[in-house]
Amino acid sequence: MDDQTKKFAGMGNAAGADRSDPAPFYAEHVFVCTNRRPAGHPRGCCADKNAEELRDYMKGRAKELGLKDVRINSAGCLDRCELGPTMVIYPEGVWYGYRSKADIDEILETHVRGGGRVTRLMLMPDQRPPKG
Amino acid sequence: MDDQTKKFAGMGNAAGADRSDPAPFYAEHVFVCTNRRPAGHPRGCCADKNAEELRDYMKGRAKELGLKDVRINSAGCLDRCELGPTMVIYPEGVWYGYRSKADIDEILETHVRGGGRVTRLMLMPDQRPPKG
Repeated sequence: MDDQTKKFAGMGNAAGADRSDPAPFYAEHVFVCTNRRPAGHPRGCCADKNAEELRDYMKGRAKELGLKDVRINSAGCLDRCELGPTMVIYPEGVWYGYRSKADIDEILETHVRGGGRVTRLMLMPDQRPPKG
Repeated sequence: MDDQTKKFAGMGNAAGADRSDPAPFYAEHVFVCTNRRPAGHPRGCCADKNAEELRDYMKGRAKELGLKDVRINSAGCLDRCELGPTMVIYPEGVWYGYRSKADIDEILETHVRGGGRVTRLMLMPDQRPPKG
């Protein structure tokens, strides 16, 4: 274990949080990967799996639900392409693989609004692409 | 204070972290706004302030420094355009406004590698654009 890893290993899920840091600017900050790779790329990409349309849907639904202090952001490649389309929600660092508007609704209502977790869609940290 | 705000108000800087959440996939996840607005937009944009070149520089330097479990990501509009170019680093949710390669070096070395804070560049949560 190197120093970088060691620094965080004992900090559990509040990794990196410093008691003297400013309050969060967004209570929930969602990053939706919308990266597009060239056609035929072996890793695929989230954009080819409808990520842009679903990102737009998520932004619209978050607005309709009147969620406060929540930001739905586009992101470049989150590098978990094979599991995509993917998103990560901070500060808690929970990742989801989703497929449909129904999945987005459930993530918004259960996680972002309700503070729960949509366990059936969560990605675990050991889900990594095979080394190529 | 509405329910959404209340939910997080008592949780300090570990807001949203749940003891049963999986370990973080990235120890440090940096999101650099590279949004581009149409020329002449009153809010300006990070892309017009050299964000793309500086994002590329940050990615390259992070690689050269051999930082493990660190991801430098592009992001769409983080909506703090007037303070830009901006970035936010999770899970700690610390925001920076930066201008130069020297600023990027300092953020990488002091914050991302060292676990400290570059206080002179930090954005506070009450720094908000004037309501237009």
